[in-house]
Amino acid sequence: MYVAGKYDVVVIGAGHAGCEAALAAARLGCSTLLATLNMDNIALMPCNPAVGGPAKGHLVREIDALGGQMGLNTDQTCIQMRMLNTGKGPAVHALRAQADKVWYQNNMKHTVENQAGLDVKQVLVDKILTAGGRISGIQIETGEVYECQCVILATGTYLRGKIILGELSYAGGPNGQRAAQMLSQSLRELGIELMRFKTGTPARVDRRTLDFSKMTIQPGDEQIHNFSFMSDVTTREQMPCWLTYTNQKTHEIIRANLHRAPLYTGLIEGTGPRYCPSIEDKVVRFAEKEAHQLFIEPEGLHTNEMYVQGMSTSLPIDVQYAFLSTIAGLEKLKIMRPGYAIEYDCVDPTQLKPSLEFKQLAGLFSAGQANGTSGYEEAAAQGLMAGINAALVVKGKEPFILSRSEAYIGVLIDDLVTKGTNEPYRIMTSRAEYRLILRQDNADLRLTDKGRALGLVGDERYARFAAKRDAIADSLANMKSTMVTPSNEVQAKLKAMNSAELRTGTSLFGLLRRTEINYSMLCKHFDLPPLPAAVCEQVEIAAKYEGYINKQIEQVERAAKLEEKRLPLNLDYEAISGLALEARQKLNKIKPLSIGQAARISGVSPADISILMIYLEQQRRREGI
Amino acid sequence: MYVAGKYDVVVIGAGHAGCEAALAAARLGCSTLLATLNMDNIALMPCNPAVGGPAKGHLVREIDALGGQMGLNTDQTCIQMRMLNTGKGPAVHALRAQADKVWYQNNMKHTVENQAGLDVKQVLVDKILTAGGRISGIQIETGEVYECQCVILATGTYLRGKIILGELSYAGGPNGQRAAQMLSQSLRELGIELMRFKTGTPARVDRRTLDFSKMTIQPGDEQIHNFSFMSDVTTREQMPCWLTYTNQKTHEIIRANLHRAPLYTGLIEGTGPRYCPSIEDKVVRFAEKEAHQLFIEPEGLHTNEMYVQGMSTSLPIDVQYAFLSTIAGLEKLKIMRPGYAIEYDCVDPTQLKPSLEFKQLAGLFSAGQANGTSGYEEAAAQGLMAGINAALVVKGKEPFILSRSEAYIGVLIDDLVTKGTNEPYRIMTSRAEYRLILRQDNADLRLTDKGRALGLVGDERYARFAAKRDAIADSLANMKSTMVTPSNEVQAKLKAMNSAELRTGTSLFGLLRRTEINYSMLCKHFDLPPLPAAVCEQVEIAAKYEGYINKQIEQVERAAKLEEKRLPLNLDYEAISGLALEARQKLNKIKPLSIGQAARISGVSPADISILMIYLEQQRRREGI
Ligand SMILES: Cc1cc2nc3c(=O)[nH]c(=O)nc-3n(C[C@H](O)[C@H](O)[C@H](O)COP(=O)(O)OP(=O)(O)OC[C@H]3O[C@@H](n4cnc5c(N)ncnc54)[C@H](O)[C@@H]3O)c2cc1C
Ligand SMILES: Cc1cc2nc3c(=O)[nH]c(=O)nc-3n(C[C@H](O)[C@H](O)[C@H](O)COP(=O)(O)OP(=O)(O)OC[C@H]3O[C@@H](n4cnc5c(N)ncnc54)[C@H](O)[C@@H]3O)c2cc1C
Repeated sequence: MYVAGKYDVVVIGAGHAGCEAALAAARLGCSTLLATLNMDNIALMPCNPAVGGPAKGHLVREIDALGGQMGLNTDQTCIQMRMLNTGKGPAVHALRAQADKVWYQNNMKHTVENQAGLDVKQVLVDKILTAGGRISGIQIETGEVYECQCVILATGTYLRGKIILGELSYAGGPNGQRAAQMLSQSLRELGIELMRFKTGTPARVDRRTLDFSKMTIQPGDEQIHNFSFMSDVTTREQMPCWLTYTNQKTHEIIRANLHRAPLYTGLIEGTGPRYCPSIEDKVVRFAEKEAHQLFIEPEGLHTNEMYVQGMSTSLPIDVQYAFLSTIAGLEKLKIMRPGYAIEYDCVDPTQLKPSLEFKQLAGLFSAGQANGTSGYEEAAAQGLMAGINAALVVKGKEPFILSRSEAYIGVLIDDLVTKGTNEPYRIMTSRAEYRLILRQDNADLRLTDKGRALGLVGDERYARFAAKRDAIADSLANMKSTMVTPSNEVQAKLKAMNSAELRTGTSLFGLLRRTEINYSMLCKHFDLPPLPAAVCEQVEIAAKYEGYINKQIEQVERAAKLEEKRLPLNLDYEAISGLALEARQKLNKIKPLSIGQAARISGVSPADISILMIYLEQQRRREGI
Repeated sequence: MYVAGKYDVVVIGAGHAGCEAALAAARLGCSTLLATLNMDNIALMPCNPAVGGPAKGHLVREIDALGGQMGLNTDQTCIQMRMLNTGKGPAVHALRAQADKVWYQNNMKHTVENQAGLDVKQVLVDKILTAGGRISGIQIETGEVYECQCVILATGTYLRGKIILGELSYAGGPNGQRAAQMLSQSLRELGIELMRFKTGTPARVDRRTLDFSKMTIQPGDEQIHNFSFMSDVTTREQMPCWLTYTNQKTHEIIRANLHRAPLYTGLIEGTGPRYCPSIEDKVVRFAEKEAHQLFIEPEGLHTNEMYVQGMSTSLPIDVQYAFLSTIAGLEKLKIMRPGYAIEYDCVDPTQLKPSLEFKQLAGLFSAGQANGTSGYEEAAAQGLMAGINAALVVKGKEPFILSRSEAYIGVLIDDLVTKGTNEPYRIMTSRAEYRLILRQDNADLRLTDKGRALGLVGDERYARFAAKRDAIADSLANMKSTMVTPSNEVQAKLKAMNSAELRTGTSLFGLLRRTEINYSMLCKHFDLPPLPAAVCEQVEIAAKYEGYINKQIEQVERAAKLEEKRLPLNLDYEAISGLALEARQKLNKIKPLSIGQAARISGVSPADISILMIYLEQQRRREGI
């Protein structure tokens, strides 16, 4: 056995999860290896080259606040940026970028290659090695071994990957690549349960063959936004996307060819994503719908490849041509790459602790699509957390866990490890209980201190954050303490702002609560100092949503009491009488860390929770004796 | 059977051969499909990212003069440019570029995607279709068919590709890609004979782990050169390469591990390249050599990957580490991608006409590594010629063939179709009989008119060429007609130029013949107009090498007489009595187009040639009756 190297942490796979994991571990001082089967495909976006959107955009900002890379990389390589849902409240504002696919990859490759403490290698991992019940290393297909303390699985859709396109199927990874055939077996031998999921992608079509005059243009925002709190990009070349629709004819063609869809011929066994369904799924499941919208999106500044968002399919190519060419603007389309589906092995995430470490194997972590999720942002978020927690294991420190009230990252991971998933899991704002607190605009305020404590937030980022935080606090304090009275002068100013007269004295903060008044008006009329846009945004939200936010904070505090009631990992639920059979089994499998987590396990009833609380109280008293 | 499209020409493979072939066919007005198994790997450089060098650089200039793309693409994406052999005569001056691997690919992808008349598609071709004894189309792995008149095979190293690395071997293409498993079978069914060749590549190592202070720097030339006669690049960021050497310890380690080399364990069956041997080959074949030089070359501006030129290997990874780390500057190296070998099916090129069309199957062409060559430039040159000739077939025109005296392209293709090859063929200056005529500096003068006649040279290129051509002619005429006499003034000028006194009158051209005199001196002393550098170069070469060049032109003319004696393609050599058995077989196989070509077939003796000439003369007389 040839030992080719020794690292603290080995990350398997340089997709979106793997890159964040490796960067985080290395930045926390661990010697780290990023092992990936094709170095030309680091941070490849095998589906659409877009980052963000509702909840996903929140994840990216959280990753950034914790010192991750996805936000910066997107800002540097994007070709369109839009803030979505600006007509709605701030909780659902969401940033979305169109990235240049190739540039995104190369920029990330450059970053991981230059990270101190991180080595990048093109190797295919076949085996996880253990010694004394914990991780000891990995083995490459060519036989050599890398020793390590922790391994992070970030294998995406490559484990026993199977490509399915119409009547054809073969073992392979995305885009003409190899699959990883052997690693699944090694995982099974370690007692790890795998699931079989599938996902799909639409055709890429030749820009030159589309008629954009029949579509609706979707330009980027004129105001430049960035994901990262550290980005100062103020101008960028933006390319438009295009909106068009399917129609009855499209649906008829699909319905007439359903018998040829791999989903129906039995070629696909894996479970597909409910929230990113193929067009054939959509036509069947929403049979009453007259039209589905679809977006035509550029894959980069320098390519004619256009992504047909919303039209993921694994129907045969003749059917793809037939139904796509019924769509307005696509009548003469030429396909450059056909749509296809991919099936792969992934880990049942209920085997993981909230730190993303396997309960049954110390030192083994798992992140990304390998955990049954779908989406680059979900992958990156888990990668970052797995990287952090692997580093903490190496350093012998407590795990870093974010709660559901602290971050979408907390919601995502808690959902996975507590509830598991029986289809590719996608983050959505509706999964979060505390949406008004978990805004994308305050991710830095929520998380930068935590990133700093971990060691991932450097001085520059921290100084920038602290200045913003202090400016907000100063401004709020100033506005709360500056009182205005119903003087003639003030009433005149209110009139000028189209706002009602004052009956009694109030603070400037009180005035800012009024819907029709914003900070810049107050600046003008009450001689307040101008504020940077990001500070102003926080001040206005604090004033306008104070009541709702406070209510949500109270809810969080109440729930926190349940989260604080810790359950020991080694608790044997079989031994607790009174628990329902299903609850016992689920609790023994999930091993929740708290009563709060236990309560979220499906199949665990409020009655079970009462019994658990009584049991805990008895234990406490017994130990108190 | 679903017909997904109809084209004049289909090119299989978007490597260096395929891109030139597709561009040429499309530019000549043929509707063309470029079908390739992974659109992210268009124009991939799976070995070192370098273009040019002796003979190869000549090919690139010839490709450019004929309107091909490789020169332009290299100029646009290169990160170092050097003119080699400047200490020697102009025949062996050779331009060599280090390209940015990723940028080279993307730039070529951009070009092919935007070429009018050309569609690019990601598909794997499984089958060549024929009807009525000629090409009718291709079939994709997913079943659909593209109809066409001509197919150009440009499949490189992908046909039944097998990756070999130490004890490991598996079916695959370069860099974690799939191989093309089915197409070989389809070719065999068409009666095409395939050979099995192999090639290899060295490790890519992490720049950060190298000690450049122990190596010799190889900077780019300060003076900016370009391959293309159309490039006006005058500044570029250049990165250095580095020279270092193997030593006895390196060789010992390799020798001690030869029993583990796939070449010796029997894992490799294919024939490897003589002129790009693996380091294990070199150590065995040149056992007496104390050291081999090797170059450490950057793979791009934005990557730490460094190519270890000269150290191609398929030895196991532990051996790669062991021998590489004996080399000065590489002691602490970390490998990012290991070296490996690849074995693949290719066509026996003696089955081809000089137009690169198969003799036995009208409409089928083959180019590049698929023809048993090795190297990007060899591939591109054949691709261009195959693309042109496929277009000429579509248009019902005569083939376009370059002779050995017109271009290195002619030498390359004549060697392939006449002599065949039993190992990966590489172009070298020593393969050319008329090196003094086939210079890299005069490729435009030799070929632009031909490119123009074909329709590949546009107005801009032609105008630029004509201006240069005319300026050379004007200058030569002027210098030849401007006489100088042995006056005192002239003798003084000669003295100033460190040149001997005149005995008798001569022309300025006569003076320029003198070794010690160059054009700029004459400018200064005899009031000649300044000339653009490229014109000046031609004028000086014309003067200084006139005698040699004229002698070579005479040789060409003599040889041309043999080339003009055409042999009909349907000649049955079995029926010509007196021919030796071997000659008969070879002639029947190669079906040479002329006596000249016949004479170059190995196994055809001067006696056989005399018999052929007599036979032709008899035929001529008989038909004359
Ligand atoms: C065809 C297709 C369609 C998709 N459609 C959608 C969609 O509609 N919506 C959506 O949200 N998401 C979609 N996705 C998923 C999206 O691409 C992933 O969610 C995201 O890329 C996951 O990131 P990851 O880092 O977990 O894995 P990946 O990006 O897949 O990266 C995995 C990495 O692991 C490497 N690797 C795997 N095994 C090994 C091994 N044994 N040794 C070494 N390296 C290894 C791979 O080379 C790769 O670098 C799709 C993916 C594919 C392939
Ligand atoms: C490992 C390795 C080492 C090498 N070492 C050297 C060296 O030392 N010296 C040297 O001079 N050269 C070397 N080469 C060779 C050099 O890469 C080639 O000469 C050059 O790339 C040939 O160009 P090509 O266009 O003929 O083929 P390639 O560049 O191989 O391109 C072939 C194209 O065909 C496509 N393709 C193949 N089959 C199908 C199909 N059925 N359907 C659709 N698409 C298909 C592929 O995807 C690819 O795009 C090496 C190559 C490899 C892989």
